[in-house]
Amino acid sequence: MRIPVAILGATGMVGQRFAQRLARHPRFEVVALAASDRSAGRSYGDAVPWRLDGACPFPSMPVRPCTPEEVDAPVVFSALDSGVARETEAAFRDAGRVVVSNASAWRMAEDVPLVIPEVNPDHVEILRGRRGAIVCNPNCTSMPLVFALAPLHAAFGVEAVAVASWQAVSGAGYPGESAWDMLGNVHPHAGDEEAKLAEEPRRILGHRDGTAIVHATFPLSARCVRVPVVDGHLVSAQIRLRGSPSVADVEAALRAWQPAARLPSTPEPLLRFATRRDRPAPRPDADAGDGMAITLGRIEPCEVFTVKLFALAHNAVRGAAGGAIAVAELLDQRGLLPTG
Amino acid sequence: MRIPVAILGATGMVGQRFAQRLARHPRFEVVALAASDRSAGRSYGDAVPWRLDGACPFPSMPVRPCTPEEVDAPVVFSALDSGVARETEAAFRDAGRVVVSNASAWRMAEDVPLVIPEVNPDHVEILRGRRGAIVCNPNCTSMPLVFALAPLHAAFGVEAVAVASWQAVSGAGYPGESAWDMLGNVHPHAGDEEAKLAEEPRRILGHRDGTAIVHATFPLSARCVRVPVVDGHLVSAQIRLRGSPSVADVEAALRAWQPAARLPSTPEPLLRFATRRDRPAPRPDADAGDGMAITLGRIEPCEVFTVKLFALAHNAVRGAAGGAIAVAELLDQRGLLPTG
Amino acid sequence: MRIPVAILGATGMVGQRFAQRLARHPRFEVVALAASDRSAGRSYGDAVPWRLDGACPFPSMPVRPCTPEEVDAPVVFSALDSGVARETEAAFRDAGRVVVSNASAWRMAEDVPLVIPEVNPDHVEILRGRRGAIVCNPNCTSMPLVFALAPLHAAFGVEAVAVASWQAVSGAGYPGESAWDMLGNVHPHAGDEEAKLAEEPRRILGHRDGTAIVHATFPLSARCVRVPVVDGHLVSAQIRLRGSPSVADVEAALRAWQPAARLPSTPEPLLRFATRRDRPAPRPDADAGDGMAITLGRIEPCEVFTVKLFALAHNAVRGAAGGAIAVAELLDQRGLLPTG
Amino acid sequence: MRIPVAILGATGMVGQRFAQRLARHPRFEVVALAASDRSAGRSYGDAVPWRLDGACPFPSMPVRPCTPEEVDAPVVFSALDSGVARETEAAFRDAGRVVVSNASAWRMAEDVPLVIPEVNPDHVEILRGRRGAIVCNPNCTSMPLVFALAPLHAAFGVEAVAVASWQAVSGAGYPGESAWDMLGNVHPHAGDEEAKLAEEPRRILGHRDGTAIVHATFPLSARCVRVPVVDGHLVSAQIRLRGSPSVADVEAALRAWQPAARLPSTPEPLLRFATRRDRPAPRPDADAGDGMAITLGRIEPCEVFTVKLFALAHNAVRGAAGGAIAVAELLDQRGLLPTG
Repeated sequence: MRIPVAILGATGMVGQRFAQRLARHPRFEVVALAASDRSAGRSYGDAVPWRLDGACPFPSMPVRPCTPEEVDAPVVFSALDSGVARETEAAFRDAGRVVVSNASAWRMAEDVPLVIPEVNPDHVEILRGRRGAIVCNPNCTSMPLVFALAPLHAAFGVEAVAVASWQAVSGAGYPGESAWDMLGNVHPHAGDEEAKLAEEPRRILGHRDGTAIVHATFPLSARCVRVPVVDGHLVSAQIRLRGSPSVADVEAALRAWQPAARLPSTPEPLLRFATRRDRPAPRPDADAGDGMAITLGRIEPCEVFTVKLFALAHNAVRGAAGGAIAVAELLDQRGLLPTG
Repeated sequence: MRIPVAILGATGMVGQRFAQRLARHPRFEVVALAASDRSAGRSYGDAVPWRLDGACPFPSMPVRPCTPEEVDAPVVFSALDSGVARETEAAFRDAGRVVVSNASAWRMAEDVPLVIPEVNPDHVEILRGRRGAIVCNPNCTSMPLVFALAPLHAAFGVEAVAVASWQAVSGAGYPGESAWDMLGNVHPHAGDEEAKLAEEPRRILGHRDGTAIVHATFPLSARCVRVPVVDGHLVSAQIRLRGSPSVADVEAALRAWQPAARLPSTPEPLLRFATRRDRPAPRPDADAGDGMAITLGRIEPCEVFTVKLFALAHNAVRGAAGGAIAVAELLDQRGLLPTG
Repeated sequence: MRIPVAILGATGMVGQRFAQRLARHPRFEVVALAASDRSAGRSYGDAVPWRLDGACPFPSMPVRPCTPEEVDAPVVFSALDSGVARETEAAFRDAGRVVVSNASAWRMAEDVPLVIPEVNPDHVEILRGRRGAIVCNPNCTSMPLVFALAPLHAAFGVEAVAVASWQAVSGAGYPGESAWDMLGNVHPHAGDEEAKLAEEPRRILGHRDGTAIVHATFPLSARCVRVPVVDGHLVSAQIRLRGSPSVADVEAALRAWQPAARLPSTPEPLLRFATRRDRPAPRPDADAGDGMAITLGRIEPCEVFTVKLFALAHNAVRGAAGGAIAVAELLDQRGLLPTG
Repeated sequence: MRIPVAILGATGMVGQRFAQRLARHPRFEVVALAASDRSAGRSYGDAVPWRLDGACPFPSMPVRPCTPEEVDAPVVFSALDSGVARETEAAFRDAGRVVVSNASAWRMAEDVPLVIPEVNPDHVEILRGRRGAIVCNPNCTSMPLVFALAPLHAAFGVEAVAVASWQAVSGAGYPGESAWDMLGNVHPHAGDEEAKLAEEPRRILGHRDGTAIVHATFPLSARCVRVPVVDGHLVSAQIRLRGSPSVADVEAALRAWQPAARLPSTPEPLLRFATRRDRPAPRPDADAGDGMAITLGRIEPCEVFTVKLFALAHNAVRGAAGGAIAVAELLDQRGLLPTG
């Protein structure tokens, strides 16, 4: 028996990723697709400018407006723009639905777990006993970074991190960056990406105290740069660790790390270790583990901190729709999903 | 009266940049072009696969072998590959020539000044009184970084630096990276680029004690990544400064900084300050000041150190041929060039 | 004494090109900048997202609405979108102004000359004696093609042409194509580009009969494809010529061709002939002659027609603003411009 | 029981594609890998710079020299460079082996069938009764073109074709084109690609007369341009057909066409029809049908001939290793393979 789910913002790039992956999900069944008023009333196949591999799923399903009254599903995945996400997601929560959101609007709210299911599954326990809820996925650049930090924070304690990113254009949605801007160019854009990166990893790597999440306290300084790559965010992290462990100890800790939860979407292996000096790299590594694996590489001594390394994740899969679906799988595993 | 000069390795990418810029130089006159035995004996126009804008200069000048006997010029610019540079440049020095080199072979030798003329012109004084000499240009990624650090080291004292780079493919010469590797991809390649970046800035920002150069001691940790950009190396620096000055003080120090020497090739302004949040960026900024200016931007507080910023320079001009020509201008200005 | 001119649509990509080139024009003086109501009322420096090299010209000039009442100049350059161009340009013409337009709206109107000044200068004579007028520049893909065809049509007579294009993204304006679409991809987009290419060359290569333009009659079949290139449209033409001349005769005719008019913007040489087999190519050749030259190459026998060749022009300069300015220079040369 | 096969040139880009696809082939079993003397003697995993998705297959299989004595397999796939292919492939044939070659060396030899198995399977019958043989795959640009022409030649008769191509960099092997050349640029390179395109389709669409292949006679004129795309060759064809059928009739003929043979590698559908105006395009369409399908689109009236259309195929799969494996499947189906 599958759990009925809906997708809010189903026609955008992340919404299409949700549709693509949920169409073949063994546990969730898409019963409603919702989007802006411009699309509502048309069939999904007619409303969506389908851009992903394979045929558009659910072509004849009608697109509904994004209101709880119109969307009859106990679990909704939100791919809404941050602008409208705040109000719409709250309306669904208040109507008793569980909202698993890829938007940034509620990530820092006290009663909203910010979750990477293999890293901090316990955080969803703050929802137990509630009827409606919002659970958030971190932003796509945090994703590879947190996977690299989690084993080291557990084994040694992270004290400070300097981060740089080489981010794919799909992270900006569609149409996103102009081709004129990105051909043979890079953009040290910022927006609030660097600010998100400074705080989200601390929340995810924080600990739960009853119904509160206590953030970790290490400082994190990020520089986020868009590069002419389609999919796959590469980050570099220079990390100060408590006790100054050797690089061998650091690599051993990374390799020994076990995910705190295993979901149907968790690939095996979850962390991959690149051996070539020109890897990880987005084109060859982003799709690893059906887009859900993280690739680490170039783990080396750092002249200013303890260790430096590169990490890469598929921003539109692990860092967006795929990651959010794994969050829902976690809620399901723990009996935190309404079943209709 | 112009000073006769020669170019070693004149047919490669950096060699072509030397030829292009020296052809219109008011003070230097190209009297000889030298390259590998494969090219020697042919005319330059015939031997060179000219790839730069405009027509190939010196098309009928014969290409000579790279030996002091065959190359009759008191000053030689070296665009040799590091493999052959070590021995060949030493041979020219031993024959009494002044070699201004873009190769890495001799950069760390005790009696070789590593010079950015507007930053550490005084270092060339260790050559005074010598007959033959080698003077080196730093590697192309050090260039924008050192220009950002120099004013801050002078005003406050640099204590530590975390660096990341977004480097253009022209930095790898021709053919350099394969198109198959670089389209829609980035390469966290390393080679010895990160090691060079850890040491060269310390030498340039060191001080002269008689005929010795005493390196600065701040640690520097770099991550160097090749991106699909033609020209222009972007670097991010996260910098710890003595006394923790405010960002306003840091920006004031950068803006107040005056070059320690002004050469004919020094553009006005030398340091440019980008005001848009998506700048500096390689395509719009690399050519500033005829490729000789440095563009700084996004000067902001750093969560782990004191300040963070971006810096950009044209790797093939300021970071290679143009920078080396400016070094020769400095030697000329100080009366350190033989005149034939 | 300079002629006062205005730019309609001054804040867009082509509008910026107009501003950049007119700011240093010896004969025209920009006295007004106009754009959509959204920009009107602000200063140009504030309203324009300047994207070209160098500083934004006229930063403090106010942006006006696009109406003849608000724009007090006898000559206006139009960089308007086709949607609004039809009505707005007609309003300026009806108010007695001379409109030199880069838009497609009026290109096929009977009383509107469609002009490449070095090719069919005589066509502007249909305007003589009129007070207000519209004169059009062809679309950016027609530009290199017509320069290749004009000498051959004059020498032999063109009977049929099969065309393919490799078009730069700047031809779609800003933001134009999405980076997500264009990275590592090409778009056999069409819109009405192929239809324009089928007709515009026939009008330009037609002849004037009194106040009528009689189109040439050769059929032309085009395939237009967008490629990940910033500037420079490359076209291939396979051409059937009357009398089946040899390739040597064809190349001789191309080299012997003299422009029918020489304008201040006409570069010397106007037609360049690439000698390498991998040229013309957009990155090295688009800027030739300050963006106003045409580069031809690979002139070879055609298995299905008479001859085949490649031609390249800078789509945003020769194919847009630069070409329109040359049209105005032609009108000036022939005494067809009001002078205020 | 599987047929033992070997790969000649197994370490290059096409060789890797052979290894990748044969490793999971139900009918062929790789028993030997051969490459140049530089690699011979090492294990495949050690000798190959593996660049494709997934792990390198056969990592511990030794790499042998490319001689019949050292390579003990009745069937060999050749991914050799054309330079060495001529002599080496002949040596294997003379030793009684069946060589299925992706090289161009023998494509025009009288006793060598040039085969697209779904198009001209009957041509392999000229081999019946022979012991050793060479069978060739066409070049990667011919592949999409011939699939577009075959149904039309059968239904109407092709009278003339004008072709243009937008070719991916993987078609040039590795390292192939320099990134410096291809970023933001296209190359109207030629080499002998245009000459191959003029003749190969005529041989494939010719008919067998006993043991002779009689070429078709329609003229074909091609312009081949490399574009910054990783995989997937797009071609445009402007086609004159006997009897001037309507576009509706042309499209009906394309849709009604049935492959003359169905192989295990033949995807279903084999020909796909794009419906959007910006398709076929390499990034979304190259992988269709596991890289073995052909995508057609924009089938429209042609102003100079009868009809024009675009066709796209994965150059490294359908146009190289995948196509050659399908040829071997055809030989197997017809009992033309030695079985050991």
